[in-house]
Amino acid sequence: GVDSVRLWNSLREVSAFGATAGGGLDRLALGDHDRAARDHLVRAAQERGWAVAVDPVGNIFVTRPGTEPGAAPVLMGSHLDSQPLGGRYDGTYGVLAGLEVLRTLDDAGVRTRRPLVLADWTNEEGSRFSPSMLGSAVYTGAHDLAGALARTDHAGATLGGELARIGYAGTPDGVPRRLHRALEVHIEQGPVLEDEGVDIGVVTGVYGIRWYDVSVRGAGGHSGTTPMSARRDALVAAGAVVRSVSELADALSPELRATTGEIVVSPNSRNSIPGSVRLALDVRHPEDAVLDRAERAIEERTAEIARASGTAITVEPVLSQPPTVFDAGTAAAVRRVADRLGLSRRDLVSGAGHDSVHLSRIAPTAMIFIPCVGGVSHHESENIRQDWAVNGANVLLHTALDAARE
Amino acid sequence: GVDSVRLWNSLREVSAFGATAGGGLDRLALGDHDRAARDHLVRAAQERGWAVAVDPVGNIFVTRPGTEPGAAPVLMGSHLDSQPLGGRYDGTYGVLAGLEVLRTLDDAGVRTRRPLVLADWTNEEGSRFSPSMLGSAVYTGAHDLAGALARTDHAGATLGGELARIGYAGTPDGVPRRLHRALEVHIEQGPVLEDEGVDIGVVTGVYGIRWYDVSVRGAGGHSGTTPMSARRDALVAAGAVVRSVSELADALSPELRATTGEIVVSPNSRNSIPGSVRLALDVRHPEDAVLDRAERAIEERTAEIARASGTAITVEPVLSQPPTVFDAGTAAAVRRVADRLGLSRRDLVSGAGHDSVHLSRIAPTAMIFIPCVGGVSHHESENIRQDWAVNGANVLLHTALDAARE
Ligand SMILES: NC(=O)NCCC(=O)O
Ligand SMILES: NC(=O)NCCC(=O)O
Repeated sequence: GVDSVRLWNSLREVSAFGATAGGGLDRLALGDHDRAARDHLVRAAQERGWAVAVDPVGNIFVTRPGTEPGAAPVLMGSHLDSQPLGGRYDGTYGVLAGLEVLRTLDDAGVRTRRPLVLADWTNEEGSRFSPSMLGSAVYTGAHDLAGALARTDHAGATLGGELARIGYAGTPDGVPRRLHRALEVHIEQGPVLEDEGVDIGVVTGVYGIRWYDVSVRGAGGHSGTTPMSARRDALVAAGAVVRSVSELADALSPELRATTGEIVVSPNSRNSIPGSVRLALDVRHPEDAVLDRAERAIEERTAEIARASGTAITVEPVLSQPPTVFDAGTAAAVRRVADRLGLSRRDLVSGAGHDSVHLSRIAPTAMIFIPCVGGVSHHESENIRQDWAVNGANVLLHTALDAARE
Repeated sequence: GVDSVRLWNSLREVSAFGATAGGGLDRLALGDHDRAARDHLVRAAQERGWAVAVDPVGNIFVTRPGTEPGAAPVLMGSHLDSQPLGGRYDGTYGVLAGLEVLRTLDDAGVRTRRPLVLADWTNEEGSRFSPSMLGSAVYTGAHDLAGALARTDHAGATLGGELARIGYAGTPDGVPRRLHRALEVHIEQGPVLEDEGVDIGVVTGVYGIRWYDVSVRGAGGHSGTTPMSARRDALVAAGAVVRSVSELADALSPELRATTGEIVVSPNSRNSIPGSVRLALDVRHPEDAVLDRAERAIEERTAEIARASGTAITVEPVLSQPPTVFDAGTAAAVRRVADRLGLSRRDLVSGAGHDSVHLSRIAPTAMIFIPCVGGVSHHESENIRQDWAVNGANVLLHTALDAARE
């Protein structure tokens, strides 16, 4: 099994990069803290003599060679970037568990037929550059490279420019292709495993995800001199949109998750009537048909709100990711490993998106979940127990080892 | 009369400091653009040999001496700062009309018994540092100096620090006291004068103004993994507060103006449930009793929203400015001048706050309004006609001249 102390120490060490006062992380993709975490990973690989490749969208690949020349590698991966006020384990745990797997095999002198590759995917969270999972999307061909490099953050910086700035604008040289299988271990980010006292979640699929940018244009003006009857207040209209989004699940499906996570008001000054507002929506469900119904409902409700408030509202789709079903054979391999290790397990569908969604389109892919405290994620208070972390890393170790010998 | 071309050129010249692409101004108090506008005013005074004093809160006083030693001065003043996306005339017009009055008297060699003082008041808008009208409040003793210097902007910079940075942290030396009368010319910021085709508004008073900071604390989390039923979304609750504020006038008084101008969401990331939200409210009415009722309604409604949404909501008063009634004698003097110049006029109550509100507590004070296009203010499209600007400056000239000879 893996070295539980080394794994835990490495989680603690890397959580220093972008640590917040509230005990979480602010390690937005391609910021200085992300650079520091990346440098740490590269140094750890170099210490062991493993080859490091960086592709043009900044994904990092660490390769521990196999014995058979040309054999397709087994990939383990996740991401080191975080939400603006995120937790220490979302993504980071998967990368460091993969690093621990490589170190464990190395220390034990285990040789594998296939190479083992550890990946850190760029901009998984999607909070700095939209959409999420952009690095894995470019790697698998689901998103074009030029479009990805041109994405901008709120301050106008491009993804390509930021890659160059932090020294992670790479080339296709040495980037592994033709994966035999892809594996990702991750915290559940929901309450099921902890509530039921189950060690391991075997992820059978991922909710479909749709993102929309909503723009509300009203009329600005002076808060003291403009009678209420003469107003077209963009924030009042935006508030009605927020409310109707939060009520979508009542009408459509209890499994629907619909969120307004971001709002930007202009001019955002107490004594100026808001003239325009931008909202960022996130809508998820396991079935595409329900997502279609949600999309129609959003369009209808925003049109009604625009009419009633005298504002102009546009709804622009910026991400549409269909529901994912993972490879049955690789999931079965994870179940067998958990059973062999005496760990309890159950199947789960993930409401969170993951790089594995993209990988599953080019290789048989599985995800392994471990519990997290209270099901909380995307929050500074995100937390896990050491034994949970060790369980997940051991399932990853043995699933990867089995796959590398296939 | 004043030189209409010089006045118009000077308005055009000063509107370059902080000009926005949309034809307005972004000249927040004590920023680099405010510094440039201040430097311009100081240079204009020095060219004529007039004394310039800067007080400890950064108010600028330009004095054209009178003939009688020790006579109390007549003050004209307004402000050069703007909203984050404001117009070119709100405040600036009053300062440059005062400058034009001084230049006109100088060119004509007119001597006055009393000194004439032109003031640029610090942080009138209140959008960078709260509350508004802070410079005139400190000058008149309505706000303490130390408290004003310690005010911080969103980035944490203090008013005192910014004054020092731009070179406008002054001393009490040479600051005029004991004012004979105070006069301010300003754009109406409402539609009445233009709608009725009236040249001059004689301002008899100003609405009472109350500001509140509202804080909503809910629970953050992952937008994809947290069921709707388990959420305490701070933005959904804040949206209900925005709505109930916008509906206050329906229940209380058609003259009430109630606005949520600012909203700040944390963490403000599309796929994170908003954990906390801050709102900035602005509520105005000509009667204190109605403002009291509005305050109680806000407290009751936010308590209901907190209960229903499972969030914690606090409402903190940050400004309470009672309704103002200006001096009847000085208003009568303005009426007489307008009649003498053959300009049409009507009385008005201002929904916008002004530095004259504070000055009216230490000296007989009058305000002169000119029309503005469409009644629009606190917006980049704010606009005036040259003949309107000239009319207001001429009424200011003759009212000031009469007062300086009293
Ligand atoms: N796993 C995870 O939190 N990914 C972020 C992308 C998303 O699900 O919104
Ligand atoms: N005149 C003016 O717009 N002042 C700003 C202060 C306020 O009324 O909110």
